[in-house]
Amino acid sequence: MPDKLDFQEIILKLTDYWKDQGCLVWHPHNVQVGAGTMNPATVLRVLGPEPWNVVYFEPSIRPDDGRFGDNPNRMQQHHQLQVILKPDPGNPQELYLQSLESIGIDLAKHDIRFVEDNWEQPALGAWGLGWEVWLDGQEITQFTYFQQAGGINLDPVSVEITYGLDRIALALHGVESVWDLEFGAGMKYGDLMLQSEIEHCQYYFNVADVKALKEIYDAYENEAKRSLEKGLVAPAHDFNLKCSFLFNVLDTRGAIGVTERAYYFRRMRRIAGQISELYLEQRQRLEYPFLDNEHWTVPVAEPDPEPGLSLAGDSAQTCVLEIGSEELPSGDLESAVRQLRLAAPEMLERLRLSYDRLVVRGTPRRLSLIIHGLAPCQEDLEMEVKGPPVDRAFDPAGEPTKAAVGFARSKGVRTNDLRVVTEGDRKYVAATVKEEGLASINVLSGELPILIAGIKFERSMRWNRSNISYSRPLRWLVALYGEHIIPFTYAGVHSGRISRGLRVDGSPDINIGRASEYADKIAEYNIIVQASLRKTVIWTAASNLAQGVGGIVREDPDLLTEVANLIEQPTMLLGSYEERFLDLPPDVLVAVMKKHQRYFPVYSEDGRSLLPYFIIVRNGGNQDLDIIKEGNEHVIRARFADAVFFYEKDSNQDLSTLLAKLDTLTFQAELGSMLDKVKRLEKLTPQLAEMLELDEHEKTDACRAAALSKADLASSLVVEMTSLQGIMGGQYARKSGEPEAVAQAIAEQYEAVSQTRPGFVLALADRLDSLVGLFAAGLAPKGSNDPYALRRAAIQIIENLVANEVEIDLRQALTYAAGHLPVDTTSETIGDVMRFVIARMETYLQEQGIRTSVVRAVLAEQGHNPYSAAASAKTLNEIVKKDYWQALLDAYARCVRISRDREIFELHPSQLELPEEQDLWRAYQAASQELDGSVPGLEAAIQAMEPAITTFFDSVLVMDDDPGIRQNRLALVQKIAGIVAGIADLSLLEGF
Amino acid sequence: MPDKLDFQEIILKLTDYWKDQGCLVWHPHNVQVGAGTMNPATVLRVLGPEPWNVVYFEPSIRPDDGRFGDNPNRMQQHHQLQVILKPDPGNPQELYLQSLESIGIDLAKHDIRFVEDNWEQPALGAWGLGWEVWLDGQEITQFTYFQQAGGINLDPVSVEITYGLDRIALALHGVESVWDLEFGAGMKYGDLMLQSEIEHCQYYFNVADVKALKEIYDAYENEAKRSLEKGLVAPAHDFNLKCSFLFNVLDTRGAIGVTERAYYFRRMRRIAGQISELYLEQRQRLEYPFLDNEHWTVPVAEPDPEPGLSLAGDSAQTCVLEIGSEELPSGDLESAVRQLRLAAPEMLERLRLSYDRLVVRGTPRRLSLIIHGLAPCQEDLEMEVKGPPVDRAFDPAGEPTKAAVGFARSKGVRTNDLRVVTEGDRKYVAATVKEEGLASINVLSGELPILIAGIKFERSMRWNRSNISYSRPLRWLVALYGEHIIPFTYAGVHSGRISRGLRVDGSPDINIGRASEYADKIAEYNIIVQASLRKTVIWTAASNLAQGVGGIVREDPDLLTEVANLIEQPTMLLGSYEERFLDLPPDVLVAVMKKHQRYFPVYSEDGRSLLPYFIIVRNGGNQDLDIIKEGNEHVIRARFADAVFFYEKDSNQDLSTLLAKLDTLTFQAELGSMLDKVKRLEKLTPQLAEMLELDEHEKTDACRAAALSKADLASSLVVEMTSLQGIMGGQYARKSGEPEAVAQAIAEQYEAVSQTRPGFVLALADRLDSLVGLFAAGLAPKGSNDPYALRRAAIQIIENLVANEVEIDLRQALTYAAGHLPVDTTSETIGDVMRFVIARMETYLQEQGIRTSVVRAVLAEQGHNPYSAAASAKTLNEIVKKDYWQALLDAYARCVRISRDREIFELHPSQLELPEEQDLWRAYQAASQELDGSVPGLEAAIQAMEPAITTFFDSVLVMDDDPGIRQNRLALVQKIAGIVAGIADLSLLEGF
Repeated sequence: MPDKLDFQEIILKLTDYWKDQGCLVWHPHNVQVGAGTMNPATVLRVLGPEPWNVVYFEPSIRPDDGRFGDNPNRMQQHHQLQVILKPDPGNPQELYLQSLESIGIDLAKHDIRFVEDNWEQPALGAWGLGWEVWLDGQEITQFTYFQQAGGINLDPVSVEITYGLDRIALALHGVESVWDLEFGAGMKYGDLMLQSEIEHCQYYFNVADVKALKEIYDAYENEAKRSLEKGLVAPAHDFNLKCSFLFNVLDTRGAIGVTERAYYFRRMRRIAGQISELYLEQRQRLEYPFLDNEHWTVPVAEPDPEPGLSLAGDSAQTCVLEIGSEELPSGDLESAVRQLRLAAPEMLERLRLSYDRLVVRGTPRRLSLIIHGLAPCQEDLEMEVKGPPVDRAFDPAGEPTKAAVGFARSKGVRTNDLRVVTEGDRKYVAATVKEEGLASINVLSGELPILIAGIKFERSMRWNRSNISYSRPLRWLVALYGEHIIPFTYAGVHSGRISRGLRVDGSPDINIGRASEYADKIAEYNIIVQASLRKTVIWTAASNLAQGVGGIVREDPDLLTEVANLIEQPTMLLGSYEERFLDLPPDVLVAVMKKHQRYFPVYSEDGRSLLPYFIIVRNGGNQDLDIIKEGNEHVIRARFADAVFFYEKDSNQDLSTLLAKLDTLTFQAELGSMLDKVKRLEKLTPQLAEMLELDEHEKTDACRAAALSKADLASSLVVEMTSLQGIMGGQYARKSGEPEAVAQAIAEQYEAVSQTRPGFVLALADRLDSLVGLFAAGLAPKGSNDPYALRRAAIQIIENLVANEVEIDLRQALTYAAGHLPVDTTSETIGDVMRFVIARMETYLQEQGIRTSVVRAVLAEQGHNPYSAAASAKTLNEIVKKDYWQALLDAYARCVRISRDREIFELHPSQLELPEEQDLWRAYQAASQELDGSVPGLEAAIQAMEPAITTFFDSVLVMDDDPGIRQNRLALVQKIAGIVAGIADLSLLEGF
Repeated sequence: MPDKLDFQEIILKLTDYWKDQGCLVWHPHNVQVGAGTMNPATVLRVLGPEPWNVVYFEPSIRPDDGRFGDNPNRMQQHHQLQVILKPDPGNPQELYLQSLESIGIDLAKHDIRFVEDNWEQPALGAWGLGWEVWLDGQEITQFTYFQQAGGINLDPVSVEITYGLDRIALALHGVESVWDLEFGAGMKYGDLMLQSEIEHCQYYFNVADVKALKEIYDAYENEAKRSLEKGLVAPAHDFNLKCSFLFNVLDTRGAIGVTERAYYFRRMRRIAGQISELYLEQRQRLEYPFLDNEHWTVPVAEPDPEPGLSLAGDSAQTCVLEIGSEELPSGDLESAVRQLRLAAPEMLERLRLSYDRLVVRGTPRRLSLIIHGLAPCQEDLEMEVKGPPVDRAFDPAGEPTKAAVGFARSKGVRTNDLRVVTEGDRKYVAATVKEEGLASINVLSGELPILIAGIKFERSMRWNRSNISYSRPLRWLVALYGEHIIPFTYAGVHSGRISRGLRVDGSPDINIGRASEYADKIAEYNIIVQASLRKTVIWTAASNLAQGVGGIVREDPDLLTEVANLIEQPTMLLGSYEERFLDLPPDVLVAVMKKHQRYFPVYSEDGRSLLPYFIIVRNGGNQDLDIIKEGNEHVIRARFADAVFFYEKDSNQDLSTLLAKLDTLTFQAELGSMLDKVKRLEKLTPQLAEMLELDEHEKTDACRAAALSKADLASSLVVEMTSLQGIMGGQYARKSGEPEAVAQAIAEQYEAVSQTRPGFVLALADRLDSLVGLFAAGLAPKGSNDPYALRRAAIQIIENLVANEVEIDLRQALTYAAGHLPVDTTSETIGDVMRFVIARMETYLQEQGIRTSVVRAVLAEQGHNPYSAAASAKTLNEIVKKDYWQALLDAYARCVRISRDREIFELHPSQLELPEEQDLWRAYQAASQELDGSVPGLEAAIQAMEPAITTFFDSVLVMDDDPGIRQNRLALVQKIAGIVAGIADLSLLEGF
């Protein structure tokens, strides 16, 4: 092994390594592709039952990653080494880590992390679950269990390992920029690549002829279809790849709108699906020849060990179950621990297994269930079993009949032991049956697999022929009761006593002699299985490190949880970056540090500004922290450089100049471009401002903000980091000299709760336009399909109105919004949107702890006015809990029940003859004074009328034979029934 | 070294080998390319002064090589390993041969040949000189000294080595078909490639949408131009490659006509040229950074050895010069030997070097000049040098003046020795100067380089920084006089005494102690330097081998010469092929054997049919002939299989069904498709048949033949082997049940001389249509630019008419032809064509040995009727040699001279008064009877009139003062002058 491999040697060495692992050596595709995945050697070969093991190099072209050669590791062309292992060999992570060793990366000296990353390639209808592999914070590999390609489920699943060669070389060479890498033969990477990098960027960003390329896209798509018609997989695939490349160029050129994008994806995906199906048919017709490749015969799994049940001891013992897996995503880890904490006690109870105490813990690689003092056996069970009726069980002589004898025998008791039980008015014989408790170890042997299978994940995956699903591949199982293994097999893994240590130590075997040693043994290997403890360690160390440079870290529970779930042994270290980057807006810096890198940003002591530091967590101990720090600093530098690239590009122009570009950004085919949307907002905003009674200043600001609201979508930084939309708009507005109120309104438009009134109106206008527009275009959410996130839009409208205590009639607001649309809307559309918002409101209010019936009652009357509805619901919810309420409701209900479902009659007060009638009429008139549209007013009104109502109904026959009298009385109670209008339909309440 | 490398290992191993030689390891391009050359790592990097050494793998896509997987080694995708060495390292052949050893090819057991192949890629404006490297008859590598790219001369020249990996693997694995090769990881090549091979063929041949792809071509070309405008090399090159690929697909789909092809090539070449220029500018602007690559520092050449002139001995010695080079093309070898045989004696004579005998010999790797008995010194020279005039050299006293003294001193003689010489009527002093001969070795040291430099080749090349041109790189020089080296340096090579042995022996050093040993030493190493001897050996052995299987070889001097020039030690072996291939037309088999493989076909004893054998010449001895035989048999089998593939494909359909395809085969943009041409021929043929008085049967056959004449151009076999056009048309016509006469006419249409009258008419029609059509389209040949080979068409018309003794008025025929064209023609066009044909006729007749003046005289009158003109010229040529001719010509000339350049007068015979006038008039009338349009008739007529003419002019004053008399006399001589009309304009003859 030479001192440092150059770039070409890294490729050759890795290729050799995988060749030695039995992989076929393949080559880059001769069509420009965005990733090695698109090479037919991956995306087709992963389909179907045949084995396939391959390694190949692939220059990957991603036009929009182009930075004109200005970024140290972001380029339109980067270089991948792609490995496919099909089926999963059982130890792909280990093979992968060995490959890194083979090119000279000493894993003990670095921080290797498997960070959740679920890969998806919509254009290929392909996705998989897996990780980014981080080397000292740098993503160097995409490691995926490929689940679907061309929309087809993969069976077996393939392991896809995609090395980012450029970044690996950076780490290996310890240089700052790819351009300085030694490529080989005395050449630097930049010597060979830089010029063409710059040129390709020029072409993609500034030169490509949009119209021509769109036409070629259509023509190539047609060639793909023609090829498919003739059953030609390979040409069809090539054309689909060419389409994909053209799409990428068009996208980089800024010529593809959001919805147009979806349209293109759909087209590519449809063809990818057809290609995949055709390929599968083809392989089937060929009778899957690769199945015969002896070279790739997958070793048959060991046979299941003999069930060899151990004898139960006679004293309680500790029991441990450790489910060892490849790195679980943070969310899955959280959820699995939660589930086990519920499921394990339930299981033990169901199994009549008593225990002292139960602990569930977890790290990314293991879930641990420790049951202290678990009884050696189940508790015995005594059950009474009912037999034949007494009269059939005993003959007149009192002797047991054949039936009784048979029953007794079947239950294993003597006839003498049968008892007589009475059920209602009948009597039966009964036997008391005893079931003796089984040894815990034997019971758990059957039940632990069920416990594991019961853990559900939001997205789970298959990986081997067991076809069992789990969050990530399950690789080992420790299951001990005392010193005995609880024997079972799950997902092809046999339970045993061997756990594994930290990755940084090479995942050494940890032999657990007995369950009670488990916690100590694991701790001995420096693994902290308790998440809360990891968090404490991280938080304490982070705070100390920040303090060391005169700063603080801000509390951030989500980040802390995620970070704690990424490691088994946290060691914190402080990284720094150049102060010049502080010129970037803090939002940008923070977004990069937190979102991309999971670093804790370091703030000044007053928490107001950033210091040029960040805090990294490393999975392992204190060794070689310098290397890791350097690596991470390199990464953040490149990322910040990228942000600077965009920020400077954007800042060079007035925000309003970006508006023109919105014309090419399609909002939705029927609703036009983003620019069209902006124009609608410019009309809708003043109308809403009027409704909400903004003053002239506010109105002016809101309108200006509306005009500029979407401009930042055309800015480079937002194109790159969508999460900064709005925020950057505000920044750029300020830089462009817009009033602060305008900038603020733009900045907060996407937030759930607006801080300013202009911002509020803009946010409302934006969401109302989307809702009514997309409903009108027939794109209302269906089932789980909500591509435009209209549910969120509706909820945000609600939350914002509620938080800001703003009353509004959404029906009117929607009508205004509808008036500006380029598509026809009917009152039905507005009704649909209103119902949709009300449905969200219902959920929203339920989540506030308000009774469903109350929610429904209020929404029935005030659904169009969320704030008011929310306030009413809250009040009513309290009222209905009051003792006196049922009486009031009863009184009111009598009025409703007798009079509803009838025509509305006119009341002639003068014709009310009986005093009870007149009293009620007076009571009604008085109570009406109380009505102010509020729930308390309504309550007061009913309260005031209640005695009169009760007296009236007790004394007066409403349904008099004389129609005139009857109708006049009905008219009176209808008046009373009607007092709920606009407040709450009390007839929907419980107890009505 | 494992027993046999699999396909992927061959790639890896060769890559490693070249990496170890200092090459950069590059990768296939991500755009479909026809060859590794098109990768920017070749076609751009070879430009400019910077060094560049690279190795990379390249899947090469050549749609029209697709055989639907039916051929054992012909595929639309084959696999290259490309190596560029820039500059020439001095031993690239040796490095290459070592690389073959590195993958397990034992060169001692195989037949390795460097067979001339001058590579050209018109679409890239690139060409180079070099070879196909043959391994046992199989082309396994293209080895080229790259001379030009993008139309730019390369300096330094690059060595380009392109391995055909598939074929190398075939040889190494000893299997019959690529599909059976072990690829690696237990996979066969066919497992991985076959299905997509078939599919791609389907797409290219049957599915591709011609219209759409043509439009994309235009659009991509435009993108290339737009990129160029912005100075972007890399994108422009990619688009040009995409255009090239689209072109190939269109071509395979049969959508590109001959002239359209030229048009497309021009477009691609133009862009390639602009790309190359832009790239060069760019590198210059970057100040050629690769020049600083220390890794590639080219070792400085050894300094020239001290001139160290040896003492001349005192007796005559043998002298030898051996110019050792990489393999010379056969034609160059022939020509160089011829040139040396002339130049060497001239040189020796000029140098006053006497010798006994001089021998020039040559093999592909060496030119040998052996001079027996070369004098040790030049002969002394005695020269008389003229000094001042006598009257200035001596004073009146007869004493020498200062001038004389000075002159004598300057010539190194005493004044007394000055002599007096007379020149005309003046006298001078003169000195006899003696120049002593120098030692031969010293003289030759200066002159041999000049001798070598004097050898000219049709195409020569540069290869190293000496920038000297030679046929192929010159690698060693043996130059001995007796035992002494004649020291000099040429093309960077120092002369010495080391020659080199056979390639099959690893080119061992041959140390030549003294010149006289040379022949024996070389012979000892089994090299036959004498071409005639090699031929004899080959012919004898071939005849014997043929006899051994009951057959014969036909004499074929061209083939014998070429074969003898491909080897240094001929060993013949007999190969055989499956009898089933004999079902193919013999023309096809022979074309394949001779043209592609330089084999001698074996015929049955009567010479009428083929036997399934062929004879191979191997460069080397008798060892391992079986391996070589097998290799060659494999090759021919693949080639025949290819022919069968096409032949069967073609034979499946009636010839006439191919006609429709001609519609997509453009003849020329303005003149329409080949089908349009056929339709014109169908109209023109009956007109010509009428002119040439064919009978009805012949006419019918000719017309049918015209209708089918071009159908075979759409047949696969002709598309593949253009040289079989016509021949295959005839074959397919017969198979389609056409009359034999029709088949025959089709078959012979392209031959210079037709055998049948229908064939004759068709050939004439075809060529006339091309001539007048292309002239009308403005495509008359200019200078050396004759892309449609119109000169040949004209010459063939002439030869055919002459050979068949057919008289025709081409003016009329051309007028008919013009009448069917879709473009406007004028009489001027027809005049232009006629003049063009006459110009060819002039050359043709001159080449027959006919005096230029005679040719011109005849053509002036009969140019439109080539046969008649030729006959007349021949006759006249004899006549003008006769003694009496001048007298006849004088007489005739008198008539012409006095009367030409005047208006034509009317003759009134009755007014002729003088008897001489009347005699002449009678003589004219009598002579007119002799005139039959032939030259002898004309001669007879003049002869008959000559006395009368002479008498007339001697006695009569033509220019009488009386205008009436004068004009009448002039009218009479004008009549006589006019008798040459339609026969020969005698005024153009010498002596007129």
